[in-house]
Amino acid sequence: MMAFFEVRRVEEVWALFEGLSAVGTERVALEEALGRVLATPIASDEDFPPFDRATMDGYAVRARDTFGASASSPVPLRVVGEVKMGEPPPFGLGEGEAAAVPTGGMIPEGADGVVMLEHVRRVRADEIEVLRPVSPWENIMRRGEDFRGGEVLLEAGRRLRPQDLALCATLGREELEVFKRPVVGIISTGDEIVPVGEVPAPGQIRDSNHYALWGVVQEAGGEPLYLGHALDELHSLTSSLEEGLERCSLILISGGSSVGTRDVTLKAFEELEAEVLFHGVAISPGKPTLMALKGRQVLWGLPGHPTSCMVVAYVLVRPCLRRMAGEIPYLPPFPYALEAIASRNIPSAPGREDYVRVTLEEREGKLLAHPLFAKSGAISSLVKGDGLLRIEAEREGVAEGERVKVWPFLP
Amino acid sequence: MMAFFEVRRVEEVWALFEGLSAVGTERVALEEALGRVLATPIASDEDFPPFDRATMDGYAVRARDTFGASASSPVPLRVVGEVKMGEPPPFGLGEGEAAAVPTGGMIPEGADGVVMLEHVRRVRADEIEVLRPVSPWENIMRRGEDFRGGEVLLEAGRRLRPQDLALCATLGREELEVFKRPVVGIISTGDEIVPVGEVPAPGQIRDSNHYALWGVVQEAGGEPLYLGHALDELHSLTSSLEEGLERCSLILISGGSSVGTRDVTLKAFEELEAEVLFHGVAISPGKPTLMALKGRQVLWGLPGHPTSCMVVAYVLVRPCLRRMAGEIPYLPPFPYALEAIASRNIPSAPGREDYVRVTLEEREGKLLAHPLFAKSGAISSLVKGDGLLRIEAEREGVAEGERVKVWPFLP
Repeated sequence: MMAFFEVRRVEEVWALFEGLSAVGTERVALEEALGRVLATPIASDEDFPPFDRATMDGYAVRARDTFGASASSPVPLRVVGEVKMGEPPPFGLGEGEAAAVPTGGMIPEGADGVVMLEHVRRVRADEIEVLRPVSPWENIMRRGEDFRGGEVLLEAGRRLRPQDLALCATLGREELEVFKRPVVGIISTGDEIVPVGEVPAPGQIRDSNHYALWGVVQEAGGEPLYLGHALDELHSLTSSLEEGLERCSLILISGGSSVGTRDVTLKAFEELEAEVLFHGVAISPGKPTLMALKGRQVLWGLPGHPTSCMVVAYVLVRPCLRRMAGEIPYLPPFPYALEAIASRNIPSAPGREDYVRVTLEEREGKLLAHPLFAKSGAISSLVKGDGLLRIEAEREGVAEGERVKVWPFLP
Repeated sequence: MMAFFEVRRVEEVWALFEGLSAVGTERVALEEALGRVLATPIASDEDFPPFDRATMDGYAVRARDTFGASASSPVPLRVVGEVKMGEPPPFGLGEGEAAAVPTGGMIPEGADGVVMLEHVRRVRADEIEVLRPVSPWENIMRRGEDFRGGEVLLEAGRRLRPQDLALCATLGREELEVFKRPVVGIISTGDEIVPVGEVPAPGQIRDSNHYALWGVVQEAGGEPLYLGHALDELHSLTSSLEEGLERCSLILISGGSSVGTRDVTLKAFEELEAEVLFHGVAISPGKPTLMALKGRQVLWGLPGHPTSCMVVAYVLVRPCLRRMAGEIPYLPPFPYALEAIASRNIPSAPGREDYVRVTLEEREGKLLAHPLFAKSGAISSLVKGDGLLRIEAEREGVAEGERVKVWPFLP
């Protein structure tokens, strides 16, 4: 006897991910850390910069010595030394004294300003004339001005960007503790599906969802693992799932969107004593989607239509996987939404969210979203598309000229 | 005698990249192709789908047989067979006949519509009653409806996304011809710089630009190669450059932003008989940037200040590298610009482009851009920042409440 499952709203599905957890941590070298998710916060041990530094080439001075200086009434100062890069100056400055300092050089004791080279006339080897005053601490980055010792600079859950690596280098972190990439098993189903290397006989088509999912998993921070092609038959699918459960944190089954095969996926989940969370989502395309839990492992049954499979992978699987990859926030599914204007009416049935593939065009400073209407089996609408336009469940579509939000595909 | 170089505008620098070329091609397996740049266009050999397919579970019929059908006046049809997934049906349909067909199944000869299961009553094993009419070709995706044989579906220069891999799989492409990743040498300079694994002595700091550039190179599709730390001295830099020229398509030198060291970079380029294209860009931060060509190899001298180095890497080096990685378009430097509202006045000196680090905040449905004012040595403004707000050279800043465009950092 089949259990009865309500169709879930997209937001309800997203809310379920809150209960999922990351799959452990590992240490990686800084060179390997781009795009990885930080598992422990990064705080500074000390002030940065660790000393007062010049931000310009020029002369370190006591600012008050330069007050009132001008081209017509220059202030003479005695040059007592030259700061060397990477070395603490072995001298301090007294009244009426100056020292040459390069950008990044350490400010000598007693100085509290740097006069730019352009505002100085060198009169003799040991004398300059200052042509403009500097304010106290002008052209100096003070110790701790960038950040203070003890300050948390990167929170756990951050997906690391180039500048984050630079910060970690500044702090001397050669290795970082990051979350492990969840291993994600991919199973293709469907008796009509043949591998990409084969020529389909009449009635057959090549397996495309396998590669769509492969890419989404990589983008979302997972490590894809192909578990092979299962026939639309209980034993074949159950044995692929059993193999996957030994190695994967998450398993994606694509296909099985027809009534008979949908039942096979559901029966296989039940046979494995997985807890089915829902069977059907109020989303178009992509309604026949199911999700189940086997302990902490997550199982998804995805529609076989390429467009449906891809939309569900982007809108539902992607945030699920980002959550399991430790990323904060893991929602919304795409990092950015672009504001655009609908170039024509787009109908939508109320009661389900619609994800319309659109192309984007900049015209007269405005971003237009052109819908690509296509049947859910069509791959070309996704390939031509620049992003997804979400129409919320309450709405009956979008009117021409209306402002809309579009999630652009990466990159 | 030093040559005289005009300061270049950002757009002039971008225009120079037009003359650069990609560094060759290679073949990769489809599983390895995400994010790679396609080197040859992908066209279809044949129509897709290759046969008329059902898009619903139901019964294939002759549409005209169902005209006028209703619940009160159902149309009886004789069931002559069942279409099996992945097999051509061994029968055709005549007048008054129907055949069960699953989603994705091949439509039998003679049929031109699919009645959904929900609109059919099964009377006997070989008889159904149709309760609603179907239009011709309803619930069928016709042969070639997704795309036609000969149609170019992916252009060369496209950075491949998950759905693009799916399309290639559908077309049977197990391997793809992609552009090689340019090998990008990274040289750190500066006598005050110590490696990340060392504890800086007074006056020293750790090398952070190396890792910032490492990340930007990876993001832009290049393969970073660390060429080591050169001292602020001609021979040391020249020999690092010579080593790099043997292995790299592009070399990035960070540091040397003080007057003396800038001259070292310039002299090293001249010693190697590289053609210096410019020395100085009207950009803030990042003015002391230089670019040179050695045949088809590209050399960049980047500022040493972390923020300046990072902004120039994003705004100038990134599109240069994307161009050399074969990507089309390679401009603008970031794939998307977000519309936001400046939360306060942001001054800018006319005559140079300003790239202000901002945080983004969604408030009452509006996206606010908060500027992070910081000296150009500050790493924290980039780490806290969500993106770059560009202020064009003609402008004298942005007023509070003004609409602005922000390039969000990836991801």
